[in-house]
Amino acid sequence: MADARRFNFSSGPATMPETVLAQLRDELWSIGGTGIGIGEHSHRSATFDRVLHEAVHAVRTVSGLGDGWEILFLQGGATMHFSLLPMNFLGEGRSAAFIDTGTWTTKAIPEARRHGAVAVVWSGERHGWDRVPGHSEIPPCTKHAYLHYCANNTIEGTQFAGPPEVDVPLICDSSSDLFSRRYDFRNHSVVFASAQKNIGLSGNVLMLVRGDFLSTARGDLSPMLSYREHAKAGSRLNTPNTLGIRAIGLCCRWILDTGGLAAMESRNESKAALLYDAIETSGGFYRGCAHAASRSRMNITFRLPNDALEAAFIEEASQQDLDGLAGHRSFGGVRASIYNAMPIAGCEALASFMRQFARLRG
Amino acid sequence: MADARRFNFSSGPATMPETVLAQLRDELWSIGGTGIGIGEHSHRSATFDRVLHEAVHAVRTVSGLGDGWEILFLQGGATMHFSLLPMNFLGEGRSAAFIDTGTWTTKAIPEARRHGAVAVVWSGERHGWDRVPGHSEIPPCTKHAYLHYCANNTIEGTQFAGPPEVDVPLICDSSSDLFSRRYDFRNHSVVFASAQKNIGLSGNVLMLVRGDFLSTARGDLSPMLSYREHAKAGSRLNTPNTLGIRAIGLCCRWILDTGGLAAMESRNESKAALLYDAIETSGGFYRGCAHAASRSRMNITFRLPNDALEAAFIEEASQQDLDGLAGHRSFGGVRASIYNAMPIAGCEALASFMRQFARLRG
Repeated sequence: MADARRFNFSSGPATMPETVLAQLRDELWSIGGTGIGIGEHSHRSATFDRVLHEAVHAVRTVSGLGDGWEILFLQGGATMHFSLLPMNFLGEGRSAAFIDTGTWTTKAIPEARRHGAVAVVWSGERHGWDRVPGHSEIPPCTKHAYLHYCANNTIEGTQFAGPPEVDVPLICDSSSDLFSRRYDFRNHSVVFASAQKNIGLSGNVLMLVRGDFLSTARGDLSPMLSYREHAKAGSRLNTPNTLGIRAIGLCCRWILDTGGLAAMESRNESKAALLYDAIETSGGFYRGCAHAASRSRMNITFRLPNDALEAAFIEEASQQDLDGLAGHRSFGGVRASIYNAMPIAGCEALASFMRQFARLRG
Repeated sequence: MADARRFNFSSGPATMPETVLAQLRDELWSIGGTGIGIGEHSHRSATFDRVLHEAVHAVRTVSGLGDGWEILFLQGGATMHFSLLPMNFLGEGRSAAFIDTGTWTTKAIPEARRHGAVAVVWSGERHGWDRVPGHSEIPPCTKHAYLHYCANNTIEGTQFAGPPEVDVPLICDSSSDLFSRRYDFRNHSVVFASAQKNIGLSGNVLMLVRGDFLSTARGDLSPMLSYREHAKAGSRLNTPNTLGIRAIGLCCRWILDTGGLAAMESRNESKAALLYDAIETSGGFYRGCAHAASRSRMNITFRLPNDALEAAFIEEASQQDLDGLAGHRSFGGVRASIYNAMPIAGCEALASFMRQFARLRG
């Protein structure tokens, strides 16, 4: 391994497990002793049959979801599915409910409006997007075709502790926290995630969809825009992103090999606690952006007393091999994204840097 | 480099240049000494800014197309763009013309019909898809919004020697022969290609589109479905396939480093000649599927006297490290895909095997 690696706190694309990277590197050249790389095998070859089967199996095992769920490997990023979800599941006379907790739901809402009515049943706008709603704040949604929410708000640094308790098909955008913790997806109808945060490479989307909900999708779409057609073809309606599917399979296998979701959750809690503790014990030098009860364990967002200090913090951290700490350009501040693959050592190093910086500049 | 490599004649995903694979392997771990892999850097980072700029520059240089052309890195495979092209460029009252030369245009036609009228101005169906039309066979198309054709028919093994001579915006599906030869794209409006044959990894689409034609696209589409929006955002409307863009950039750089399109064309002609010569000198044991004037230099399709011999040929070739020679499941026979990255040695080995097999079994 040539270059030394740096701690990468980027919000996505994001740091990947080194064991996965090492295996992908080997497999780019030749996978399974075939003398042909993972990016070069036909998507109809026996080798790729195995890759796809292993990926489906690993996703199914990690998720704990049974055969009633379809597992789809798609493309376009989560944003593409802000358009395709209502295209598939809305239509004239139908409406979708949204819990609007930040950038990603705010982007998804107008796409749904193209295909049906939209009811925003809760919005975090008047709170400055600093929290997610409590259960009692979400009204009944039974008249809607579905309720769409975002489990973790990458930019704002807020996260649902558990699923909304509603009696309506639930669609969860779990792009930035899928498989980072135990989470009850059983009352959901669709769970989707762009892969470049916790489970792989950008350009790939993992979608878990209940068969009974899928059967309610529109049947008259172009095949490439139709989830039913993708499901019927087992994610091989056309040439899929073969390397990307391998990466998702290897990331899920890595989760299982390192103790599964319970162990992952425990590590992710410890990592987040290191950083929130550094914020809380800073005597107000660092100010967390999210309400305590809504704090994300994936994206830790905080402010310093002023812009100049924030810029100095990000710059000096980078000099100490702590990279990618600038907040989203729309939101500012500092953001540490500590997805599954961020080692505890990275969070320890960042917490230590935070204390040192506060001591010198506070 | 662990495993020995085999010659991979797969039609796509397909063999890639070993120098590109070797660089991608290194860069998966750390790109440009950053200590962070190409799949892990933020798509808004300075490192990825450089990657994207280098890819655009390499594509522009190889293509020879000037600033009047937008260069877009998209997803979904060519098939997705069979849907998005008419969505962007057709509409009520408009019509598209198609030259139907095989599987890919046959798949694209019904997608265009969803958004406007379609005129199939030439079809190879009654010829058994064994050739492309001559210039005189294509009628004037001026009343149509565009004429769509497929430059190289991967499955049938036919290829246009040059662009149709028509006075209408030309859309070329060049998925399986882009940058394999010098080709006059100047009278085109759109050239698009899925990357997994000549220029990279599956899940990536390169689209070259003239700015003046792009400005005629519909303006009311979902941003993710709109080429204008992708162009405005410089292929970063949302998180793009960062590793895939790197692969396209490196493949185009490799084309330039090995002599550019003239040298590539010359090597590809020599490679194809080796195989067509083995067919022609076999005394009828091998029968080429395409008319001589329409023969593809990328996908060499041929038949043996019967199915059993074809199966034996494919099996025995595979034992001699010549992989992926089965014809498409819809077409049968034998197909050798010899894209840019297939070395001459691979074609020599296959030609030699063909002669040996014909001698023993003919």
